[in-house]
Amino acid sequence: MLSRADLEALDRADPLAGWRARFALPDGIVYLDGNSLGALPEATAATIEDLVRRQWGRDLITSWTRHGWVDLPRTLGAKIARLIGAGPGEVLVADSISVNLVKLVAAALHLRPGRTVVLSERSNFPTDLYVVQGLRDLLGDRLELRLVDSDRVASALDERTALLMLSHVDYRSGRVHDMAALTEAAHEAGALALWDLAHSAGVMPLALARDRVDLAVGCGYKYLNGGPGAPAFLFVAERWQESARQPVSGWFGHRDPFAFEPLYRPAAGIDRFQAGTPPILSLKALEVGVDLLGEVDLAAVRAKARQLGDRFIRLVEERCADHGLTLASPRDGSERGAQVVFRHAEGYPIMQALIARGVIGDFRAPDLIRFGFAPLYLRFVDLWDAVEILRVVLAERAWDRPEFKQRASVT
Amino acid sequence: MLSRADLEALDRADPLAGWRARFALPDGIVYLDGNSLGALPEATAATIEDLVRRQWGRDLITSWTRHGWVDLPRTLGAKIARLIGAGPGEVLVADSISVNLVKLVAAALHLRPGRTVVLSERSNFPTDLYVVQGLRDLLGDRLELRLVDSDRVASALDERTALLMLSHVDYRSGRVHDMAALTEAAHEAGALALWDLAHSAGVMPLALARDRVDLAVGCGYKYLNGGPGAPAFLFVAERWQESARQPVSGWFGHRDPFAFEPLYRPAAGIDRFQAGTPPILSLKALEVGVDLLGEVDLAAVRAKARQLGDRFIRLVEERCADHGLTLASPRDGSERGAQVVFRHAEGYPIMQALIARGVIGDFRAPDLIRFGFAPLYLRFVDLWDAVEILRVVLAERAWDRPEFKQRASVT
Repeated sequence: MLSRADLEALDRADPLAGWRARFALPDGIVYLDGNSLGALPEATAATIEDLVRRQWGRDLITSWTRHGWVDLPRTLGAKIARLIGAGPGEVLVADSISVNLVKLVAAALHLRPGRTVVLSERSNFPTDLYVVQGLRDLLGDRLELRLVDSDRVASALDERTALLMLSHVDYRSGRVHDMAALTEAAHEAGALALWDLAHSAGVMPLALARDRVDLAVGCGYKYLNGGPGAPAFLFVAERWQESARQPVSGWFGHRDPFAFEPLYRPAAGIDRFQAGTPPILSLKALEVGVDLLGEVDLAAVRAKARQLGDRFIRLVEERCADHGLTLASPRDGSERGAQVVFRHAEGYPIMQALIARGVIGDFRAPDLIRFGFAPLYLRFVDLWDAVEILRVVLAERAWDRPEFKQRASVT
Repeated sequence: MLSRADLEALDRADPLAGWRARFALPDGIVYLDGNSLGALPEATAATIEDLVRRQWGRDLITSWTRHGWVDLPRTLGAKIARLIGAGPGEVLVADSISVNLVKLVAAALHLRPGRTVVLSERSNFPTDLYVVQGLRDLLGDRLELRLVDSDRVASALDERTALLMLSHVDYRSGRVHDMAALTEAAHEAGALALWDLAHSAGVMPLALARDRVDLAVGCGYKYLNGGPGAPAFLFVAERWQESARQPVSGWFGHRDPFAFEPLYRPAAGIDRFQAGTPPILSLKALEVGVDLLGEVDLAAVRAKARQLGDRFIRLVEERCADHGLTLASPRDGSERGAQVVFRHAEGYPIMQALIARGVIGDFRAPDLIRFGFAPLYLRFVDLWDAVEILRVVLAERAWDRPEFKQRASVT
């Protein structure tokens, strides 16, 4: 059986151990929810204070050019591009994933005239499905959302499919799709492929250009550590940019925004996917997180995430057996992102009891307790401490209290 | 002729004079661009530092409920509602004006089946027109954008008009539309009325409920002093909310976001106009500006803005005659928002020369120099100083230098 000393030894050998000091983490907490809200980089507060006091307060409107605010969606996008294996002009920071999906799904329909089906998996993150439903309400029978089980996606592609839209890593199970193979299958069917990278960007190497991905979206507030509700990013392969049109055509996507022309002319390149004025405070906070990741070897991050997940599963199964927990993530680390999910009929109160004792993961309906492993600031020994608390909560039925069973809206 | 002493006397009598100390303003600058980017409230930096270090850094994911992040779009919306004469459940802070217009224009078409025309004025702010063009590309002949001159709007309403979409205060001339009368005219034609409040919210009393306005959008970074690219707000009259549908249907607009259902069900009330996860840093900064305005008498703000504009026009005409400047704003203060615009063939280099000497206004194509008067932090004597510098720039042709003629993308 794994011992606490074994985990301490893994920490001593961990090439990424030094990164934890770059984050501000509270004492007495094991934070296993970096896949929902990434931790605060130490550098963020000073950067934001400078932005607020010096750039906004002192330099005022002139900061749009003097401090590069006007270019930030693109310059920050280029930094994210390096993390996901894309070209510097293929990524833009803008809006939320939801808004960006409106742009990209509409663009895909325009690029695939005569095709009407957006194909996705039933278990995709709901906002991805909701956005397609919103567009369908607007477009009627020019758009159909087709949902299948995750393992039936490739065989459901056909000549009506305009777009295959999938999450790279499942937000619940953590299962990783084969991005290259499914993109190729979409292309063979004449469709485009759109990947939601919310649970993979920043925690594993990605190669969007090599894998011939057409479109993608990703999240700024998970593994990029951009802060609560940080802006999202979008990717459009260069080969599609000049022919793509998107309907959220705000003035920042215009070819010459400051000409104030009444007629919309889309900007060249990725800029045509901008919409309104970007929220600079939130973009600057995101830049700190992205800059930090720019110094890291993502292959080492991926390797540590797998080790963390493997050890966590083993600890839970060795120390918490006979309490009704069932692994709901792939056991094979190569098929699993940086998270592990267990099923339990009392999952909701169990997670509340864990949080009350300082082990912060989250609950996903109907019965899943989810633990995320952000390799830059999580230690192996944290796993021991978390599982020990889980063991006690289960053994003592500490979750069986009314205050833990009362449901609230929890992210 | 007005003297500097006259303006000093106006400052001494100004009931709003004390508010200037609540803003962090740089020395040696006359800031006449609060209508493009509002100044920094003194309280903002500390609020954001607390948000970053304590709420995000220490309380992490639990802040979504513990610190009310999840309700912020609605609670901050309710504070803005008080500034614009709306009910507390009628305003939401979300996204940008551009994205919100996509939601509201699509909602209006849905609420007015069989009607296809969005009627607006040729001189409306371009992003408003661009968004309708983007939707038209998507919807084909189900949507037509009809543009007329500003004084022909009422007579252009007809039985095909689904929506009258106007800016309350023109972003260039500052001309104020009669919101109540035009809304009534739209209703008589069976259309809805949507108002863009970018240049009026926070600088004059508004009465959206009394005026029977149907839909509105507004800006967080001008007179609400929310910081660069602060989120926008939207208004939907309560009477339309339950039947309205909007296409940017992200998870924050779902009736039960944390049930993670695959089928979109719109939330009750204004929440159905949310889309993705809101950018909390930017919302919190906006809240500081809105809270500050909540303490102010907007009728006094409006009165001072008129006085500032009247005095500025008089000073320019008395002291800068014979240099080719033509007033391009209404002379009557009751028809003019909180800004004054002059036309000059060399407007661009003139504004650059002014900025180089510390008088910050802005240029709007093709030939307009624009001066905004944010009454909470502008003194009457600032007008004297600005016009004196303008006089020297014109008299000495200080603008006639190559570095001032080189065009850059300036907000």
